[in-house]
Amino acid sequence: MKRIAILGSTGSIGRSTLQIVEAYPQRFGVVSLAAGKNVDVVFEQAQRWKPALVSVRDEQQAQALRVKLSAAGLGHIEVAHGPEGNVRVATHANADFVVSAIVGVAGLEATFEAVRAGKTVGLANKESLVVAGELITAEAKRQRKPLLPIDSEHNAVHQCMRGGRLEEVERIWLTASGGPFLNTPLSEFSKITVEQALNHPTWKMGQRITVDSATLMNKGFEVIEACRLFGLPPSQVKVIVHPQSTIHSMVEFRDGSLLAQLSVTDMRLPILYALTYPDRIESDLRFPVEELRRLDFCAPDMERFPCLRLAYEAAEAGGSKTIALNAADEVAVAAFLEGRISFQEIPRVIAAVVRETAGQHPESIRNVLLVDTEAREAACDKIKTLSRSQSSSPRSARVS
Amino acid sequence: MKRIAILGSTGSIGRSTLQIVEAYPQRFGVVSLAAGKNVDVVFEQAQRWKPALVSVRDEQQAQALRVKLSAAGLGHIEVAHGPEGNVRVATHANADFVVSAIVGVAGLEATFEAVRAGKTVGLANKESLVVAGELITAEAKRQRKPLLPIDSEHNAVHQCMRGGRLEEVERIWLTASGGPFLNTPLSEFSKITVEQALNHPTWKMGQRITVDSATLMNKGFEVIEACRLFGLPPSQVKVIVHPQSTIHSMVEFRDGSLLAQLSVTDMRLPILYALTYPDRIESDLRFPVEELRRLDFCAPDMERFPCLRLAYEAAEAGGSKTIALNAADEVAVAAFLEGRISFQEIPRVIAAVVRETAGQHPESIRNVLLVDTEAREAACDKIKTLSRSQSSSPRSARVS
Repeated sequence: MKRIAILGSTGSIGRSTLQIVEAYPQRFGVVSLAAGKNVDVVFEQAQRWKPALVSVRDEQQAQALRVKLSAAGLGHIEVAHGPEGNVRVATHANADFVVSAIVGVAGLEATFEAVRAGKTVGLANKESLVVAGELITAEAKRQRKPLLPIDSEHNAVHQCMRGGRLEEVERIWLTASGGPFLNTPLSEFSKITVEQALNHPTWKMGQRITVDSATLMNKGFEVIEACRLFGLPPSQVKVIVHPQSTIHSMVEFRDGSLLAQLSVTDMRLPILYALTYPDRIESDLRFPVEELRRLDFCAPDMERFPCLRLAYEAAEAGGSKTIALNAADEVAVAAFLEGRISFQEIPRVIAAVVRETAGQHPESIRNVLLVDTEAREAACDKIKTLSRSQSSSPRSARVS
Repeated sequence: MKRIAILGSTGSIGRSTLQIVEAYPQRFGVVSLAAGKNVDVVFEQAQRWKPALVSVRDEQQAQALRVKLSAAGLGHIEVAHGPEGNVRVATHANADFVVSAIVGVAGLEATFEAVRAGKTVGLANKESLVVAGELITAEAKRQRKPLLPIDSEHNAVHQCMRGGRLEEVERIWLTASGGPFLNTPLSEFSKITVEQALNHPTWKMGQRITVDSATLMNKGFEVIEACRLFGLPPSQVKVIVHPQSTIHSMVEFRDGSLLAQLSVTDMRLPILYALTYPDRIESDLRFPVEELRRLDFCAPDMERFPCLRLAYEAAEAGGSKTIALNAADEVAVAAFLEGRISFQEIPRVIAAVVRETAGQHPESIRNVLLVDTEAREAACDKIKTLSRSQSSSPRSARVS
């Protein structure tokens, strides 16, 4: 039986992981759960899975959860909270496998500590690799433990990589759905509204990642993740637009063969793969091959999607530049969603912040977080400047 | 340096193999060559590659080759001939790898002997597996040597298989271009001419395999080959039509993931893969991923292509039924090319011969060849009967 710790148990990946545990009761058990402020849901999860340890966001929620657990005769379940609670969940002595699915830099420290404690980690937390990928992959190497990607693209790459050795890889091809503006002419980009940007054609996701998909910054982050996960330079990680998202990614080998991974778009599939690797077990997540009809592809347009270019540049520099890229993007997307900057200003804010961030390679998670904070402040400043110049001379984008 | 024996050195696969040897002089050398009656070409090959042994079809050609070699100062190259010569080439003591690329049952014995001699064999000879697959794969297992497929579909499957263990495979998906009659209505099948059947949309090949591609019998043979090569029942080997032939085949694993192999349609790629397995070496056979635009798929129509159904039935029965399938198809296709039977009569002849062939599992290559001979005779008889009934009452197919 594989005993699992879940960082982010009430989120989408956390809940999918628990569905898998439910489907294979002989194979998987739950050791510890870290959630946010959703006490009701985490209480239900604790009741159902009887973990040894649960962590929530703060002391107040921890107390509320303790009361509920006691009333349910589950007073023996330990309750922790905050960043320290997350770390305790991630490093629990009985955990064999840690699912890292807390969104944002909040999941960073716990993920790093899980790796440092010699756990096998399934990574759904994007920031772990974008922001601290160099530290985390170096630590995983030291521990001789695999980092198993839990997202459709990198999981696909991981599967295709089995067809050869790393040094036989010519290029990785990440597929991109292309987002809602795949076919929008550049001349109309200045008029893109928040509603349009949030209208993703194939995936229902959180607001930030939906906008990141519309700017292709999300694909840019995935390029950085791929570089870190597989130890390849950005020049060997390519993006190809594939609107159906049936091929989740491809690996091109130096002999000229490509391997591609196809499956349904269901996150349980990469989670199951990570949990059972190197085995594959029976699932009902079947792709209807008989119904396969048409797959389309095109090259990404770097002119219309400058965020992708910015991500490549940051990936080349590494270290603080990728931290700044992520921080500035988060702040710029929030400002766009609040109507404070236009869609086209998102890459401008990011470019300015990344440019101004001094190139360095932080050697601890603490230093990573310092660079992150500085970049967020720089992005806020940049946005204020833009907003001021905007209020004095309104742009056509706002007027129309 | 890997020392190679080539069965069928003057054919397309043989010449492609020598191109690879030429491109990687540090890696590969040529030990022995078996050719047919093309003395001039095999002489040139012997001059260029200086093998220890060359074999040609008969004594007369052997003598002619000896004279040419002596005149060129290459009298030390040994010259053999006939089936025995093929076997000597295939089992040459210095050969590490045997490329089996003699067309038809002529290549059978030498291929089997190569496996029996403990050589690693790259299989391009379709009949080896269709007709004697059970014997050959059992022998390869005994020898603990891999049988490496040199055709685009099975080579693709071999590559995708690396993504999991055999018992984790749910299904193999062989892709089929669909041939020239993919979109021809069934009502027009009775009017199909030899010229139309020989007009394959994507591949230039020999006449028999071109007609076999038009009837989908070629894909049926590949289903049988896949069953034997990978040890799966026919129910786990599926066919999907994919006109662009970019995806060369796929493997569906039991967790729901599929791996697909994509590459240019160049036989040097599977040859190189087989020659270097388990390594992959740099080649210039690059697939232009940037230019990938559209891939189409559809299910094969068993009503319009009954040969595929016949192949599945023969695959289920195995042994003598698949031998009869191959023999009857070869005779029926020849009769079609000679204008003696119609396109739609090809499956009828095959069905009758396979039905009448007693089910058994020949335990030697000799017995395989006996069943083969009997099935050929039965097919000839069947065609004569058809031709007689045809001359007394001409069919619309011929009249129109």
